[in-house]
Amino acid sequence: MAVALTIAATAGAEPRVLSVTPGATILRAAHAAGIDVTATCGGRGRCTSCRVKFVAGPVPPPTIMDEVQLGDDQVREAYRLACQCHVTDAVTVHLAPPIAEESFQILGAGAPATPLRRVEIDSGVTKQVVKVSLPREEHHQTSDLEELLAAVGMDESAVSPTVVQTLPSALREDADGVTVTTFAGKVLAVERGDTALLRFGLAVDIGTTTVVTTLIELGSGEQLASVSSLNPQSVFGGDLMSRIAFAQFNPGNLRKLHTRIIGLLNQHIAEVCRLSGVLPKWIYKVVVVGNTCMHHVLLGIDPSYVGLAPYAPVMRHALALPARELFLKLAPEARVCLLPIVAGFVGADAVAVTLATHMGEGDEIRVAVDIGTNGEVILGSRDHLWACSAPAGPALEGAQIRHGMRGAAGAIDRVVVDDDLRVHTIGETPALGICGSGLIDLIAGLLDAGVIDATGLIRVDDRDRMRPALRDRVVMRGEERTVIVLRPGEAGARQEIVLTQDDVRQVQLAKGAIASGIALLQRVSRVSDDRISELMLAGGFGNYLSIPSAVRIGLIPRLPLERIRYIGNAASLGAQACLLSEAERARANELADRIEHVSLAAHPDFEDVFVTAMNFPA
Amino acid sequence: MAVALTIAATAGAEPRVLSVTPGATILRAAHAAGIDVTATCGGRGRCTSCRVKFVAGPVPPPTIMDEVQLGDDQVREAYRLACQCHVTDAVTVHLAPPIAEESFQILGAGAPATPLRRVEIDSGVTKQVVKVSLPREEHHQTSDLEELLAAVGMDESAVSPTVVQTLPSALREDADGVTVTTFAGKVLAVERGDTALLRFGLAVDIGTTTVVTTLIELGSGEQLASVSSLNPQSVFGGDLMSRIAFAQFNPGNLRKLHTRIIGLLNQHIAEVCRLSGVLPKWIYKVVVVGNTCMHHVLLGIDPSYVGLAPYAPVMRHALALPARELFLKLAPEARVCLLPIVAGFVGADAVAVTLATHMGEGDEIRVAVDIGTNGEVILGSRDHLWACSAPAGPALEGAQIRHGMRGAAGAIDRVVVDDDLRVHTIGETPALGICGSGLIDLIAGLLDAGVIDATGLIRVDDRDRMRPALRDRVVMRGEERTVIVLRPGEAGARQEIVLTQDDVRQVQLAKGAIASGIALLQRVSRVSDDRISELMLAGGFGNYLSIPSAVRIGLIPRLPLERIRYIGNAASLGAQACLLSEAERARANELADRIEHVSLAAHPDFEDVFVTAMNFPA
Repeated sequence: MAVALTIAATAGAEPRVLSVTPGATILRAAHAAGIDVTATCGGRGRCTSCRVKFVAGPVPPPTIMDEVQLGDDQVREAYRLACQCHVTDAVTVHLAPPIAEESFQILGAGAPATPLRRVEIDSGVTKQVVKVSLPREEHHQTSDLEELLAAVGMDESAVSPTVVQTLPSALREDADGVTVTTFAGKVLAVERGDTALLRFGLAVDIGTTTVVTTLIELGSGEQLASVSSLNPQSVFGGDLMSRIAFAQFNPGNLRKLHTRIIGLLNQHIAEVCRLSGVLPKWIYKVVVVGNTCMHHVLLGIDPSYVGLAPYAPVMRHALALPARELFLKLAPEARVCLLPIVAGFVGADAVAVTLATHMGEGDEIRVAVDIGTNGEVILGSRDHLWACSAPAGPALEGAQIRHGMRGAAGAIDRVVVDDDLRVHTIGETPALGICGSGLIDLIAGLLDAGVIDATGLIRVDDRDRMRPALRDRVVMRGEERTVIVLRPGEAGARQEIVLTQDDVRQVQLAKGAIASGIALLQRVSRVSDDRISELMLAGGFGNYLSIPSAVRIGLIPRLPLERIRYIGNAASLGAQACLLSEAERARANELADRIEHVSLAAHPDFEDVFVTAMNFPA
Repeated sequence: MAVALTIAATAGAEPRVLSVTPGATILRAAHAAGIDVTATCGGRGRCTSCRVKFVAGPVPPPTIMDEVQLGDDQVREAYRLACQCHVTDAVTVHLAPPIAEESFQILGAGAPATPLRRVEIDSGVTKQVVKVSLPREEHHQTSDLEELLAAVGMDESAVSPTVVQTLPSALREDADGVTVTTFAGKVLAVERGDTALLRFGLAVDIGTTTVVTTLIELGSGEQLASVSSLNPQSVFGGDLMSRIAFAQFNPGNLRKLHTRIIGLLNQHIAEVCRLSGVLPKWIYKVVVVGNTCMHHVLLGIDPSYVGLAPYAPVMRHALALPARELFLKLAPEARVCLLPIVAGFVGADAVAVTLATHMGEGDEIRVAVDIGTNGEVILGSRDHLWACSAPAGPALEGAQIRHGMRGAAGAIDRVVVDDDLRVHTIGETPALGICGSGLIDLIAGLLDAGVIDATGLIRVDDRDRMRPALRDRVVMRGEERTVIVLRPGEAGARQEIVLTQDDVRQVQLAKGAIASGIALLQRVSRVSDDRISELMLAGGFGNYLSIPSAVRIGLIPRLPLERIRYIGNAASLGAQACLLSEAERARANELADRIEHVSLAAHPDFEDVFVTAMNFPA
C-alpha cells in the first residue's frame, strides 16, 4: 500500500522515486531515504527551510503552518512545508533551492583578535630518535617491541597493538633509527628515520551551527591552516533542542548525527592537510570543544536526556581517546582530547571560553558572552565563577528570519537608518538577504527612528510621524506588519527583502535569552553593572556585531563602551591553548570543577527577568 | 593484453571468467579473485591440494612438479598444479573436488582427558547489581556516569566511551537497578536489571590447521559448547612457513589472513551461542592461545620476520584487549586475553601446554610433546624448563600424503599388519583415505613385517621374503615404490588407496622433526630417557595415536609405555584454566619468563640428531 513520492533536488536534477508509507511526512520520507532536506527548526513548522514545490499530483490543502510560514503567494504557487505535509497520493515535488553553501564562510575564523596571553608551549607530544638493536642470534628471547622499549625506557603498557603493527618494517627499513612519538605516557607512533621536526595538532570547535578546525605546529604554535563549515547535522535541526529531538530515543537518527560530524571532521583534516602540505599521520594531538550535545553526539552517546529536565549530561570528565576510536583519519593512536563539561547546557565550549579569557584568575569581575545558537554567559573572577546557558536559537545567524541568511557574500551585515535605510553587504555584492549583525543594526536603527517601539511592534499605525522615505517602507502585507528593507533593484537585490513583525519577535526571543542570562547571573552573584570591569563578546558572530547597536537593542547591558570588547572565537582559542599546553589542559579540568552552573529556567526570578529582557530599552 | 581464465569449482558449478595478466599462475589469479583454491604447501609445488583439470583451451606441458606430485596418469588426464601453471592462453579449468569439509570434525575436541587438577575458580569477571540515584533538580552538577561510579566505588578511568553510550537508557529503564560487570579494574558493561547470573567466557585455541572454541560458564567452569573448524587461512598455506611466506612483505595477503581468522572466530561465537542459548553480550572474557604466527596475524601484526632468521617475534607480552578492537561480536568491552609468547616458534600455545600440565611445579622431569603442524616440545620441572619448536608439517594431519586426509569420517585411523593389512575407518564408513594415526600404525606394521626398512625404503626388491598377501601389495608404479593399502572394493574403498615411497619420506620428516626436538632438549638439559618420569602427548591428534606405533616408528623415545600418556588438547585446556582463574593467567606470564627457548637449527648437534631421528628404530 506504499505511495510513490518523487523528489528532485531542483527543477533540473535527476528525480528520485521513493516508496512511502501513506501518512508519512515528506520530510521524514526524504530523510529516511538519505535525501538532505534542511529542517532548521527540527521539523516543527517553525521555519521555511524545508519548503518544497508540488509539480505533479494533487497539491494538498495548506496547513496553518504553511500559511503562517510561507504566506499566501507561496501557498498559491504550490509551495508547502515538507515537515507538515503528509503523503497520501503519488506526487512529485522539487526542493526549494537553498542559498549556495559554496559561498559560505565563517568570516573571522582565524581573525587575529585574541585575548590569550602567551601560553608556555608544552603540548606534551614529544619525539625521540633512537637506534634499536635487533636480535642477531637465533637463541634469543626478546622481541622487536622489547628492544624498542628498552631504547626509550618505557614498558609494554605504553604501547597498543596498532603501534606494534608498525614495528617490523619501521625498525628494519632505516639504518638511521626510528622516531618514537609519545604523549601522556603512551607511545603514539614509531616512524622510520628521523621525523622529529614533524609534530602537528588540531584545535576543533564544534558549534551547533559552525565547525572550525585549526592546524597548528606544536613546536612553535604557528597556525598553518584553518577551515570552517556549516555543521552538517544542521539539516536535522538548526538549534540544539531540535537536534536533540531528532535523536531522541531514535538510535538510527543518533547514528546519522554521529556519522555526519565524523565525516565532516575527516573532510576538515583532509582540507587543512591539503592547504598546508602536512600529512595526517604527523598530527598527534587534537583538542575538541563543543557544547554538551555536540560532545555526546561526537562520542555516539545518546543526548536524549540532556534535552529533558533535569538536563543531566551522561558524562562530564575530560577524555583523551585514540583517534582510531573516533574513526578519524590521523595516526591511529593520535590522542583526541575532549575538554570537560560543566552541565547539560554549559559544555566544554564554555570551559574553553573561561580558559581563554583567564576570567578565573584575576580579581576583577568580568563577563564573557558566547553568542551562538546555544550561547553561554560566564561571570566571575578568581573568587567565584558562574555560568548559564543562553539559548538564543539560530535567529541571530539568520535562520527562522524571512529573508535571513548567514554571514556569507551578499548578506546585509551593516544597516544605517537616517532619512532612509542604507545597507552594506558582505563582499559588496548584490544583496541576497540579511545576516545577524545586519538585523541588529536594522532593529537598533528602526528603534531610534521610531519605526519599532519598545515592545517590538512595527508601528504601521504611526507611519505619519516617520520620515517620508521610511514611511514608504512600513506597510501591511495581508495581516503582517512589514518593513521593506530593499525593494527589487536597491543594493542590487533581485527581489524584495523585508523585515516582518515575526522576524522582530524572533530577534527579541534571541536577545532576550542572552540578556536574561546576563541579568540572572548578575542577580545570583549580586554583581551590579558598575562592578563589571569588562564584558567580552565571543563567538564568530560577536566579531561582526556593532557594539552600539547591541547595546541599543538591549542584547548586552548599557556599560560604558570602552568596557565592552570583541574577543573572537574564544572557544576555539581555548582549544588552541590546550593543544599547545598540557598545563592549560589541566587548568580546564580545574575550571570545570570551579564553575557553578546556574539553571536559568529553575530560578524563581526567571520569568520576570525574561519578560523584561524581551523588551527593547526605551 | 589480459587472458581469459575460466574457473569452475566443480564440473557442475557456475564458472567464473577472470581476466588475467599473462604469466600469472592459476593459483595466484584465483586467490586474487577471491576464489578459494587450497594450497596446503603455500604454492610451492610440494603437494597436490591445488590441482586443477584443464577442460578447454591448450593443456600446458607438465612441469617437473606436476609429474612428481600428480604422477603420469593424472598428468595424462590434463591435471596440473595450479601453483605451477602459468596462464598464457585462454583456458578453462575445474578445481579438483576437495574432501567434503562438512563431514570434518576434530574428534576429541572436548574429550574428557584432562591433566588439569582442579583450578580454583576466579575468572576476575564480577557482576554487581546497584541502584543509581539520578539528579532530580535542574541546578545540579553531576552526570549519569558520576552517579554510577559513586555507587560502585570506581573512578572515571575505569570506563570507556562505549560503556558510557549504554548508560542513559540502562539507568532509566529498570527500577530494580543495573548490573555492572567489571574485570581487572575496568567496567565492561552496564546492563539494566539484574543479570548477575549471566557470566560466560570463551577459550580459543588457534592452531595452524584447526581452531577450537569452547564456551564456559564462568561461575561453575561448566563447558556449555565447543566447536572446531579448519583454520580458514589454510588455503593460503598448510604449514606455518608457507603461511608466513604468503603474508611476507605483502600487506594485502596479511589482511586476508587476518580477516579470515576474525571471520571464523565470529562464526564460532555465533555457533557456540546458538548451541547453548547464551547471548554474545554475556560473554565478557576470552582467552586465546596460538603459536606466534597465529597470534601476530590475529592482531594484524606482520609475521614476515618471524619466518626469517633469527626468527624474532614482534612482541611477546600478554595482552587484554577490548573485543571491539578485534572486531569480535561480543560485548564491545569484553576482554580478549592473549597469553604471552616465548619465542618466534615457541608461542602462547606452548605456554598454555606448560601451564595445563603443571610441568613447572613438580620435582619430576616431564616432557610434553604437542603434535601439530608446528609442534612444540617442552621438557623440565620446577627447577628449569626448556622448549623448542618441532615443525612436523601437516603430513601427520594427512596433508602432502598421496591419499592422506584429516581425521574425518572415512579416514583409515587404525591399521594392523599381520598376514595381510587390516584397516579401521572413522565412523566405520567406506574408506576414503588415510589419516595421521592410520599412517603411523601402517608404517609401524610395515616396519615389523619387513616391508619398510630402517632407512624408510619400501623393499620392493625383497618382496620374496614377505608374507604372500603382503607381497602382492608391494609394487613398483612407474618409478615409484608403492604399497597398496586398499584395492578398490576393500573396506568399501571406491578407488585404490596407496602408500608411496614419498609418503614414507614425508612421515620420516615429520617424525624426525619431533623426535629430534625431544632428543635435543634431552641433550641440552642432560636428561637421559630414564630420568623422564612422564612423556605427555598433547594436541587433538595425539589422542588418536597408538602409543606403541609411535614408539615403534621412533616418533617418541622408547620409554616404558606406562610413562607415556595422552593429555588431549592441552593448549586449549591451558586457555580454559586462564579463563577460569586469574591466578592461572598470572602464572602463564611467570612461566613464559621461565621457559628457556632452545633453537634447534642453531644448535651445533642439530644435523647429527636430525639425520638419526629421520631413520626408523631397528
